[in-house]
Amino acid sequence: MSQRVVIVGAVAAGPKTACRARRLMPDAQITMVDQDDLISYGGCGIPYFVSGDVTDEKELRSTSYHLVRDESFFRDAKGVDVRILTRAVAIDRKEKVLHVEHVKTGVKDTIPYDKLVIATGSRPNILPVPGNDLKGVYTVGSLHKAISIKESIAKGEVGKAVVIGGGAIGIEMAEALTDLWGVETTIVEFMPQVLPKIVDWSVAAIVERHLRENGVTVYTGEGAKEFVAGSSGRVARVITNKRELEADLVIMAAGVRPRGELARDAGLMVSAPGGIVVNQRLQTSDPDIYAAGDCIETYNLVTGKKAYAPLGSLANRQGRVIADNLAGIPSTFDGVVGSFIMKFFDMCVGATGISQEVAVSEGFDAVSAMGVSYDRAHFFPTHDMMYLALVVDRSTRRVLGLNGAAKMGDGLLARINAAAALIPKKPVISDFSNLELAYAPPFSTALDALNTAANVADNLVSGRLRTIEIKDFLAWMSGELKRPDWVVLDLRHPNEAGLLVEKFGDRWISLPYNRVKKEYKSLPSDKVLLIMCDAGTRSYEIQVFLDTVNMKNTMVVPGAMNLMRRLGVEWLP
Amino acid sequence: MSQRVVIVGAVAAGPKTACRARRLMPDAQITMVDQDDLISYGGCGIPYFVSGDVTDEKELRSTSYHLVRDESFFRDAKGVDVRILTRAVAIDRKEKVLHVEHVKTGVKDTIPYDKLVIATGSRPNILPVPGNDLKGVYTVGSLHKAISIKESIAKGEVGKAVVIGGGAIGIEMAEALTDLWGVETTIVEFMPQVLPKIVDWSVAAIVERHLRENGVTVYTGEGAKEFVAGSSGRVARVITNKRELEADLVIMAAGVRPRGELARDAGLMVSAPGGIVVNQRLQTSDPDIYAAGDCIETYNLVTGKKAYAPLGSLANRQGRVIADNLAGIPSTFDGVVGSFIMKFFDMCVGATGISQEVAVSEGFDAVSAMGVSYDRAHFFPTHDMMYLALVVDRSTRRVLGLNGAAKMGDGLLARINAAAALIPKKPVISDFSNLELAYAPPFSTALDALNTAANVADNLVSGRLRTIEIKDFLAWMSGELKRPDWVVLDLRHPNEAGLLVEKFGDRWISLPYNRVKKEYKSLPSDKVLLIMCDAGTRSYEIQVFLDTVNMKNTMVVPGAMNLMRRLGVEWLP
Repeated sequence: MSQRVVIVGAVAAGPKTACRARRLMPDAQITMVDQDDLISYGGCGIPYFVSGDVTDEKELRSTSYHLVRDESFFRDAKGVDVRILTRAVAIDRKEKVLHVEHVKTGVKDTIPYDKLVIATGSRPNILPVPGNDLKGVYTVGSLHKAISIKESIAKGEVGKAVVIGGGAIGIEMAEALTDLWGVETTIVEFMPQVLPKIVDWSVAAIVERHLRENGVTVYTGEGAKEFVAGSSGRVARVITNKRELEADLVIMAAGVRPRGELARDAGLMVSAPGGIVVNQRLQTSDPDIYAAGDCIETYNLVTGKKAYAPLGSLANRQGRVIADNLAGIPSTFDGVVGSFIMKFFDMCVGATGISQEVAVSEGFDAVSAMGVSYDRAHFFPTHDMMYLALVVDRSTRRVLGLNGAAKMGDGLLARINAAAALIPKKPVISDFSNLELAYAPPFSTALDALNTAANVADNLVSGRLRTIEIKDFLAWMSGELKRPDWVVLDLRHPNEAGLLVEKFGDRWISLPYNRVKKEYKSLPSDKVLLIMCDAGTRSYEIQVFLDTVNMKNTMVVPGAMNLMRRLGVEWLP
Repeated sequence: MSQRVVIVGAVAAGPKTACRARRLMPDAQITMVDQDDLISYGGCGIPYFVSGDVTDEKELRSTSYHLVRDESFFRDAKGVDVRILTRAVAIDRKEKVLHVEHVKTGVKDTIPYDKLVIATGSRPNILPVPGNDLKGVYTVGSLHKAISIKESIAKGEVGKAVVIGGGAIGIEMAEALTDLWGVETTIVEFMPQVLPKIVDWSVAAIVERHLRENGVTVYTGEGAKEFVAGSSGRVARVITNKRELEADLVIMAAGVRPRGELARDAGLMVSAPGGIVVNQRLQTSDPDIYAAGDCIETYNLVTGKKAYAPLGSLANRQGRVIADNLAGIPSTFDGVVGSFIMKFFDMCVGATGISQEVAVSEGFDAVSAMGVSYDRAHFFPTHDMMYLALVVDRSTRRVLGLNGAAKMGDGLLARINAAAALIPKKPVISDFSNLELAYAPPFSTALDALNTAANVADNLVSGRLRTIEIKDFLAWMSGELKRPDWVVLDLRHPNEAGLLVEKFGDRWISLPYNRVKKEYKSLPSDKVLLIMCDAGTRSYEIQVFLDTVNMKNTMVVPGAMNLMRRLGVEWLP
């Protein structure tokens, strides 16, 4: 008898498993059930559908050759039976039967299986605050919700919106609302920075600055306490621990959690947060049952610990692995490195591996080395700045992660992808210094921005480069942190440095880079010198030189003017 | 006494060594000599200087903060003595002295060293044909030559140009001449394709097509036999083995070879082609003499054999390694993977690892799997096609190389860089299938184009996918190759397929993808079916299905319509 494969869930991992299994196992009977009527869609496209970049929701569930992926498509083109509006109620592992129920009619049925695949996905976190069920309060967990949000905006119901959560989806939704609909939008993030645990502080600061430049209000370190209805019964205000915000629309983008109940109720191993436990072949604790996608717990290839990584791209890769194993082709999914990229207005931000904060919390002696470089040859007409933070372990020199921001385009992706390929191999700094990234002037500098970030990390870890955190430098400048005597040594051209000398008087000294070796004796020896240039490179050189003349009380401002300009530091000329 | 470091050559590897050594060895005496008066320039920027993208040659030898890197810059800012117009004549290894001579005055001198660094670079190959010394016949080996070429064009002396050599520099120069100066330009390449040994045939065909679209004439498989002077004594014609071409300017871009004479004459080990032999620390056969840049022989990390890789980006990385070793920090340069990227008009082409042709010549059972995918989500407004050829060894599944072409931008770079990071680790196909490239709809598809290319390779190597080479398909269609009975099965919408059915009659059958499973019995069983769609994906699925109904006489046309359109196949509607 032909093998019966039953798949629960038909968004990403499910359809991928089904289609590949069909190609590998011509005789199998493949059935896919989903409680929704919209299936096989690109959930990551939802913000672009809401913004209007994607006009019709059908585009999110069409193939690149313009066929809508509905039940008849799966039946006729793919040879896969799909039962929509069909909820999986329980798994009878002994009898090897899936119990289902029609969502609308309530009619119950059973589907026998030889192999079962659970791809039940995730559900968005609902904030446990009063008013979370008001009209106008949404999550973005499904295409239906997205359609409602877009309709509401299109009807003109939304003048002001509050997005709870400054993670990727929150920021993408904020852009969609602001940029294409002109909605006055505020992001409220509970943690002290946006993209918490994904990028380092300075990269998050770049993101926050660019959001503000584009009209999005950003409040960090602030939590929503209540959603309050207006006279119409619809949400009208958001109360946080710090303020009250008007809002016709509230989007809760506070993360998702695995839908593991079906598995748990069947007695399969499930983690505390609800992720289904699988081995590298993506088998659950029952070898006849596989699981993939947002509903599983996976493994972090950097920390070596269990992790949760709900991403459509991983779901697709996992679906392929399951299909291979079903067909008897040994195949493994070894874990995740945490690759991430996102557009926000005219910039993009990305990461792979772990951030400094996560690394420290995992017990690494982690530092973040900021490299600020041009993305292509400085003599090439269209060059721009790229900000890369390389996270390294000081004692072992192991590279743990890379995060950064750049002008919108694929330039940042090119560095993130290279690091994503290397990081699972437990590389050290010199692997990145020598990494042979492709070079031509329209694409990069001779030493690529990523090589440069590695070289900064090398100098930092070797103790040749001593820096002040940019955050602290700004606090020293503002007087927020009172510190002993210090002065900024500005190495740039006197025309540039002069403006700040005028402004800050004896806090700011100008001595051009190429005159330091002759005139260093004019520098104060009783103060900490904070060395400043455009990118930090010249500052490092001068620090090294001053060490040789026994002026060792210096710190380099990393990223320097280029970073501060990007951060919109208000006292800059 | 402080250590004396003497460096011969001041373009890329030399200055990098000098500056890093200065930072690491504060007490060292560092001297750099160069026979030229223009030093420390970005040679890779020469085509952009000729085109006019870079206005002034000074930009090629300036820092990103606008200081010209001349002798006074190196002296004052870097603490490095530079002697320009100074030719290194001989090394006295016993006395540890470098003999030099002033290029203009002929005055001789000796410079004692403790450590010597040879960074003498390369010289362009001069074609051994009559007329190679005529006025108007150039190589592009130095900034001086580039300045002359640009002056000659600016004076209006050049209406027609012939570039000998379809490698990277030849193509970049052809673009510079055509695009910004309107010079009627022809490329003559001796090998059967442009970018020989760098990219696979189909990728080269894309490049050739796009050059022609932009007005560059391309002749492959054709060699220059003579350059003939006009009445003025200046070059006027190029005679090849096939034709005669008018030319006011001839550029010989036929590769470069190492300048290894200084090393060879000093009794150091030098390879047959003249590359200085170095160990991983970049020491020559004399441990007190190092060498780096275009003058050395290096090691190919894929083939495990000696290689020559003259690239500014490598020279810079090598310079850093030498400086570290001079300062007592153990550091190695392990070899090259051959990463390459290049802009040509509105497209770019790149590669890393080795091409199929090279792989076969190295004894691998190599196949090239062509993946044609969108560079970003198909529902995202600005998506375009990316053509990736993954070169794999059939028996071991090892990935040996990646080459491809795409619309100009950094999208191709993002895939080349990821592969460049992985290929030295001797990856297999599944490492690429599961490679966690960063995903968001504005940057990629959920399964990245590179993952897709790996999946195509997997299907190909597993024998599930059987293809006809696109080259052969075109020859079958044109009748150039006479073959037994075959017919094209076009899976696209009948509106699209119909146009070709009309054109080719019984050579072309239309049966849409989603009807094959019901109607396959209508297909001819006595002919080879060449299965055709847009990208090749549907064709593969249908091939797998037809296998199950015992119709196994099929071949997929890889890359399909998308590739053929890019190649400008003339019979397409």
